[in-house]
Amino acid sequence: MSHYYRLVVSCPDRRGIVARVSGFISGHGGSITEASQHSDLASGRFFMRYEILADSIDMTGDALRQAFEPVAREFEMEWALRDTRQRPRVVVMVSRESHCLVDLLYRWTAGEMEGDIVGVISNHPDMRGMVEWHGLPYFHVPVDATDKTAAFAEIESRVEALEADTVVLARYMQILPPNLCQRYAGRVINIHHSFLPSFAGARPYHQAHDRGVKLIGATCHYVTEELDAGPIIEQDIHRVSHCHTPGDLVRFGRDVEKAVLARGLRWHLEDRVLIHGNKTVVFA
Amino acid sequence: MSHYYRLVVSCPDRRGIVARVSGFISGHGGSITEASQHSDLASGRFFMRYEILADSIDMTGDALRQAFEPVAREFEMEWALRDTRQRPRVVVMVSRESHCLVDLLYRWTAGEMEGDIVGVISNHPDMRGMVEWHGLPYFHVPVDATDKTAAFAEIESRVEALEADTVVLARYMQILPPNLCQRYAGRVINIHHSFLPSFAGARPYHQAHDRGVKLIGATCHYVTEELDAGPIIEQDIHRVSHCHTPGDLVRFGRDVEKAVLARGLRWHLEDRVLIHGNKTVVFA
Amino acid sequence: MSHYYRLVVSCPDRRGIVARVSGFISGHGGSITEASQHSDLASGRFFMRYEILADSIDMTGDALRQAFEPVAREFEMEWALRDTRQRPRVVVMVSRESHCLVDLLYRWTAGEMEGDIVGVISNHPDMRGMVEWHGLPYFHVPVDATDKTAAFAEIESRVEALEADTVVLARYMQILPPNLCQRYAGRVINIHHSFLPSFAGARPYHQAHDRGVKLIGATCHYVTEELDAGPIIEQDIHRVSHCHTPGDLVRFGRDVEKAVLARGLRWHLEDRVLIHGNKTVVFA
Amino acid sequence: MSHYYRLVVSCPDRRGIVARVSGFISGHGGSITEASQHSDLASGRFFMRYEILADSIDMTGDALRQAFEPVAREFEMEWALRDTRQRPRVVVMVSRESHCLVDLLYRWTAGEMEGDIVGVISNHPDMRGMVEWHGLPYFHVPVDATDKTAAFAEIESRVEALEADTVVLARYMQILPPNLCQRYAGRVINIHHSFLPSFAGARPYHQAHDRGVKLIGATCHYVTEELDAGPIIEQDIHRVSHCHTPGDLVRFGRDVEKAVLARGLRWHLEDRVLIHGNKTVVFA
Repeated sequence: MSHYYRLVVSCPDRRGIVARVSGFISGHGGSITEASQHSDLASGRFFMRYEILADSIDMTGDALRQAFEPVAREFEMEWALRDTRQRPRVVVMVSRESHCLVDLLYRWTAGEMEGDIVGVISNHPDMRGMVEWHGLPYFHVPVDATDKTAAFAEIESRVEALEADTVVLARYMQILPPNLCQRYAGRVINIHHSFLPSFAGARPYHQAHDRGVKLIGATCHYVTEELDAGPIIEQDIHRVSHCHTPGDLVRFGRDVEKAVLARGLRWHLEDRVLIHGNKTVVFA
Repeated sequence: MSHYYRLVVSCPDRRGIVARVSGFISGHGGSITEASQHSDLASGRFFMRYEILADSIDMTGDALRQAFEPVAREFEMEWALRDTRQRPRVVVMVSRESHCLVDLLYRWTAGEMEGDIVGVISNHPDMRGMVEWHGLPYFHVPVDATDKTAAFAEIESRVEALEADTVVLARYMQILPPNLCQRYAGRVINIHHSFLPSFAGARPYHQAHDRGVKLIGATCHYVTEELDAGPIIEQDIHRVSHCHTPGDLVRFGRDVEKAVLARGLRWHLEDRVLIHGNKTVVFA
Repeated sequence: MSHYYRLVVSCPDRRGIVARVSGFISGHGGSITEASQHSDLASGRFFMRYEILADSIDMTGDALRQAFEPVAREFEMEWALRDTRQRPRVVVMVSRESHCLVDLLYRWTAGEMEGDIVGVISNHPDMRGMVEWHGLPYFHVPVDATDKTAAFAEIESRVEALEADTVVLARYMQILPPNLCQRYAGRVINIHHSFLPSFAGARPYHQAHDRGVKLIGATCHYVTEELDAGPIIEQDIHRVSHCHTPGDLVRFGRDVEKAVLARGLRWHLEDRVLIHGNKTVVFA
Repeated sequence: MSHYYRLVVSCPDRRGIVARVSGFISGHGGSITEASQHSDLASGRFFMRYEILADSIDMTGDALRQAFEPVAREFEMEWALRDTRQRPRVVVMVSRESHCLVDLLYRWTAGEMEGDIVGVISNHPDMRGMVEWHGLPYFHVPVDATDKTAAFAEIESRVEALEADTVVLARYMQILPPNLCQRYAGRVINIHHSFLPSFAGARPYHQAHDRGVKLIGATCHYVTEELDAGPIIEQDIHRVSHCHTPGDLVRFGRDVEKAVLARGLRWHLEDRVLIHGNKTVVFA
């Protein structure tokens, strides 16, 4: 089966970038099957993503990276070239709500996910059976509310041992400590159960019910040290009315959370999300 | 053409309300063409709205009101019975953005609005031509930023002289003084150009752009003394991406604002919106 | 835990129905927690659904049914009164696509479904493991393309033995024979993977791709003898563009199918769907 | 104010197109502010659209066209380069429903439209006042149901005299004759009041109501000789229920029609729509 290289670039915008990069690719025989680019006028920054049929390139991925290095330097690029044969490794963290995890496991087993779930970490034992039935290791790491240090040290070593590329907080109701946020910056994805920036913090559906909003939402974002304030990848909403109790909002919300997390994670794993300050460029 | 009575009730919830009210109506020959009800479990309050074919009733509207009085007292109702032949009078207030006004004028002339626009008040002269072409009076009331008292006194007397039942702030960029908010409580409808409670206050599309949200929205709500915090009638959203400038958000937003205001105002004029604390019951 | 009676009525529309029924309920002490009604002007038919707190009624469900009989006769009602303690029994039928089944199993185990899945029937063996892990019986009934009689006879006896109240065709790619459609009229729910009436029949996503539509959809409907033509319960859509292959449409479609089927089935199991000719009244 | 060149290309897909075109542009100093491309794998055809800051180019538009000619020949391109200073001229045709025309006139006067409405043609006299108030000529061309030849000959000469680049059928309820469809192929845009391919032909909202669908829609498409079958540019939907009469569907539909036509026309006028057989590539 054919594989691809994904070239992702961000750099100061100036004339000739596309010509230079596309010339480089076609000069090596490369067939570009998907191309996206964006110029951010306010910041003067340029973003691009190319999907290149690997078999069309006349050299290995490593050689291609080396050959591209001078181009990257010339344009002061932050860049990466990934081979789709190297599938990202995903660790999922959960508390007691299983809907997002069940959804991700289905998408993984159905072949919808471009990456592999390699383990699940939880502060509760509830989902061990289901996770192990999928052939995955389950790590129950209880979090002591008075001192969370030990728990997060264990989590960090588990994530490291699992060689995770991406960590998904799939309704993991604990706040990650700053050192973890920094260490895995741009690689930890959270699903927050409100339409941020509305209703950050705890019990957002109850906050929404109290305010009498007519739409509730969910937000998939990168985790940063500031709670619920990281770069937003995706959001969606569900219509509600006076008929609905907070419990109904929770139930509707589950479906929105699943959908928003699945889309956000998919785009992340397909290298479609570029972080730009506290915002994202998403080549969906 | 047939007209209707609209009976709108809110009262403490207890057994037998529906039986009593529907029995009263059918006892007078009344044919109920639309019925809505809601029990709010948290507050123990009950809400209902009946639409009754006027010709099916064996007495006048006033007589019906009198006859209903003992029922209302028995159940401690707040209630109103409106004859649809008495069309509500609507005053629209605008600043410089015309999209909501143009939309409302179209709906009125097309017969989509159950009420009549009777005048337009603005702190700018820009829309006089268009408004007068529709055969409506236009009142240019400039607002002196250093002392707004005189302007709002004039506005109050204009609204009074126009015998307005409802005042619509169709992107009127001034904050109403507390006395006006109180005097017209539950009768002043505002369209706010954000998905409240996100981005209350000024320049919400720019706030939204800065935060990098993936959906923008608009909110139609009753005006109260606290800015952008009144009971929400309707909300909707529009999807945006990194491609879009604040200017694009403004443009998309106009369409959402028009739609949300039109729906909210329609429901209000059709007596479908019941205020309940800082929330609304909307029998849409 | 409190249980409810659900009274569902359809009858010729005439004055006094609501008064009579609500009077009957409150006369027996009944507390109505949710009420919905609809007058279809074109056909002159009336529909209503009451949810009544069972503990508030001064007699048993059977006695209540008997007591209501004269009222029902008087108004020529088709009606049912169901006790929510008697949970509907659901049989799910699938072929090879598992997404709808996985979703329904999750909702059932999470307590989101007002009914119980009691067995799964498939013309393929693929999902036995997953289904049995949920503690449910799995019946593999291969369908011989040249003569389907034996297979559908076995299916009929399985459904009967499982005492199914509702049969869900969760992407079961076989057409039910007319005798089954008749026997289980109003109790077999299908999810069709297009926005009906567009693209009835086979391979709807490929049809949609060929036509170049900008939205794809899914439709949940009751099964009748005429293929894909039964009363529609629910529909929804997903936006697509020129970028998307038929395979993308299939993938997006799965999410729409799951959501639409889940909502349609939920409403059916909560007695919110009343069939009216080839249409439905849905008290959602 | 800065203007732009828009280069729109479609050609057989092969290696090096992007490199060649972007190299050509940057070789002439061109600053590309927006770039979109698409490879259609099934047909092997490639599509691209570049927006180029005109002031960054070291020659006139005509010279640029000439210089590009050899590149275009080399890759067998169908192409166009348009200067945004040459605003497209739009003729709107209407019957008796005014909502789409009112909406387009608002967008034009508000500066939202990248083109100019230059005249309105109608088979009814109703909208003359409104159109002329906007300073536009109004041509009342009655259509004789028994022989439409004369009317369409007059329409053709009016369109020609107005030097129309684009003709918008904004709820013009007549079918254009084949010769007009051919002459203005790819330049006549229709809004159809259904979610095509459902409910082509007459009275689609009544058809939708009869079928009991839960969503209605509208479709913006290019007009071809086959009725309601041309390439689709944009579609959208609105949720309906058993409560809604055909009249309600008509009213909801108006809002969908306005929105869908406005988006479709905008994309067309911004050269974002490329026709590909009976489908469109829309670089929205």
